[in-house]
Amino acid sequence: MDVIVGGGVVGLSVAWRLAREGRPVTVIDPAPGSGASHAAAGMLAPVSEVTYTEAPLLRLGVASLRRWPAFAAELAADAGLGTTGLEAGGQESPEHAVGLRLAPGAPPGRGLDLRADGTLDVAFGADDLAALEELAAFMDKLGLPVERLTGRECRRLEPMLAPSVRGGLLAPDDAWVNPRRVTAALLTALERRGVPLVRARATGLLHEDGAVVGVRLEPGGEVRGERVVLAAGAWSGGLADVPVRPVKGQIMRLRSPQPLLSRCVRGAVHGSSVYLVPRGDGELVVGATQEEMGFDTKVTAGGLYELLRDARELVPGVTELEVADVVAGLRPGTPDNLPVIGPSGTPGLVYATGHHRGGVLLAPLTTAILLGEESELAALCAPGRFRDLS
Amino acid sequence: MDVIVGGGVVGLSVAWRLAREGRPVTVIDPAPGSGASHAAAGMLAPVSEVTYTEAPLLRLGVASLRRWPAFAAELAADAGLGTTGLEAGGQESPEHAVGLRLAPGAPPGRGLDLRADGTLDVAFGADDLAALEELAAFMDKLGLPVERLTGRECRRLEPMLAPSVRGGLLAPDDAWVNPRRVTAALLTALERRGVPLVRARATGLLHEDGAVVGVRLEPGGEVRGERVVLAAGAWSGGLADVPVRPVKGQIMRLRSPQPLLSRCVRGAVHGSSVYLVPRGDGELVVGATQEEMGFDTKVTAGGLYELLRDARELVPGVTELEVADVVAGLRPGTPDNLPVIGPSGTPGLVYATGHHRGGVLLAPLTTAILLGEESELAALCAPGRFRDLS
Repeated sequence: MDVIVGGGVVGLSVAWRLAREGRPVTVIDPAPGSGASHAAAGMLAPVSEVTYTEAPLLRLGVASLRRWPAFAAELAADAGLGTTGLEAGGQESPEHAVGLRLAPGAPPGRGLDLRADGTLDVAFGADDLAALEELAAFMDKLGLPVERLTGRECRRLEPMLAPSVRGGLLAPDDAWVNPRRVTAALLTALERRGVPLVRARATGLLHEDGAVVGVRLEPGGEVRGERVVLAAGAWSGGLADVPVRPVKGQIMRLRSPQPLLSRCVRGAVHGSSVYLVPRGDGELVVGATQEEMGFDTKVTAGGLYELLRDARELVPGVTELEVADVVAGLRPGTPDNLPVIGPSGTPGLVYATGHHRGGVLLAPLTTAILLGEESELAALCAPGRFRDLS
Repeated sequence: MDVIVGGGVVGLSVAWRLAREGRPVTVIDPAPGSGASHAAAGMLAPVSEVTYTEAPLLRLGVASLRRWPAFAAELAADAGLGTTGLEAGGQESPEHAVGLRLAPGAPPGRGLDLRADGTLDVAFGADDLAALEELAAFMDKLGLPVERLTGRECRRLEPMLAPSVRGGLLAPDDAWVNPRRVTAALLTALERRGVPLVRARATGLLHEDGAVVGVRLEPGGEVRGERVVLAAGAWSGGLADVPVRPVKGQIMRLRSPQPLLSRCVRGAVHGSSVYLVPRGDGELVVGATQEEMGFDTKVTAGGLYELLRDARELVPGVTELEVADVVAGLRPGTPDNLPVIGPSGTPGLVYATGHHRGGVLLAPLTTAILLGEESELAALCAPGRFRDLS
């Protein structure tokens, strides 16, 4: 049996794929879906994320985004959902190179709320515009599909954008999904497959003869298995010798009677980056702070202030919206911003952690790596790379 | 029997005083203590409030503040609380002209959390400073005890104030209380006296032969009495012909491990006024917006943004604090900003409403007016003044 430690979007996805393969699995989590997956905005945006990262992560992101439509379709079917919001694209649609296509007539806000209308990255000042231009050149070199837009063209796409927006980049292939619906669907799918869910905290690994053979639980007891998959996100570093640290993110959900935006919008304001993700049900997600604060998950006055200030700057109309929800989550950060996926080096222990800001995007790829379907990309995520450092 | 419509701080205070006088009373409210009293900061600050109002309201406020210590002491005794946080001042203490004295050794945060350490009104720019100087001259003329302070003196009193504070006015007699503890104590005191509380919404008044004889309830039924006291706050205008309108206020509670302030601080920032009220239990209340939005009680992105922006400007250290609570309440506003207290003109109907921003401060005076103890001040609040207008 495989013991999956962690019931976030990564752990649940791994459990679900393994269960579909006919393997016996058990999931351990005191409160499934309540960690970083609960806070996450759900951007599936490897292209616009290029701003903040390097080529290896882009490769992982693009590969995982291509897997999302099939992943979503299978998950929706397994969970008994009527629709995913998207059909899995058998052939490439001309406007969306990664093959996501909106299902004709699929009502927004149903299913997983998976949407593929692209990300618009906007610039305010001349400096921002120059940085965006450089980024566009870099993306061209990588062969990524992006379109340069003037301020007027940005506002034609998104009329609620601030008049001071000077220009933008459209990444038409970027998509997004509602992570809370994904974890709910995964839990339903697992339940329908009879996968046991142990609602307890794993406090340590059980070692026998140099191998990991299970986990200890709080307040007592243990679960044993042939293999332990550590998918405990920011808490992974407390259970095994893996360099994962918590990176705090505060994120806000606004409620909009009319949708203010038709796609994800992001921008740099006063040097800090903010993004706005519209949901089919009228929710508008505003994220997110990035703070090195250890395991602190307090929503602070300063965090809220930054989000509100930057969101207002980007889309002034947000001031009228109701504040529905504010939470802080802990991303599992790694030294090189790449996830840690695969055999740990200790027999019986496998890692599926360190996804930082990309757990939702990278969940399908993570399952594929663990099932041996992506050997080349698996090398980028191999846990062994950190052993060389120490 | 008296039927009190409204279980906020005013309605409950009236019911409690009447019950203490031996009168049979019944209180009607679907959710006592959940309206404006739940949102209120609890400033008992008639002097610093002079900024925003006129002489009649100042007279009411000062008279009611003088009643607060005895009111609090009796309430604490009746509710079985150990301490009010203050002793009722039998003689005037030299530094607090209204006679509030901190009980020696009274632990902060217990009882009603009544404190009398004054309000500090601060100015940022030269214009603010000039306005504060004018206000000080006006207060001198009224004989109100205020002290002019330099920026350095302000920071000596409150070291967490922003370095850009240029000067201030200290109103040493101003006090504050925790309104949620006051309504809780009132509910306990009423329960101990056996006063019935009907948890239902009053939807209309019962009229017979030109007199009010009770109220109709939702979902059905009625309560009859010799006298109906309308203390329904912002909802009063829907039940009787009294010119009360809702004035929305959004207010935030922050949680502070160490107290940032030792007294109430207020200031004008970018032309909008903000105040910070420290509680004994480490809570820091930041208030409040004033919005004419009808019966809307949504917490909005814009409201939160204003509060956070202005609080940061006044006390930069708030950014580190946890956001514990954000609510919107509806103040009962009147055309002249004075409350409406006394016989309505219709037999059987008495008003105790329209307290706008001053319900907590004016509760003791309101009960005194209704019990015939304050005939001169009663004239200022007489409902008849609006009949002359129409």
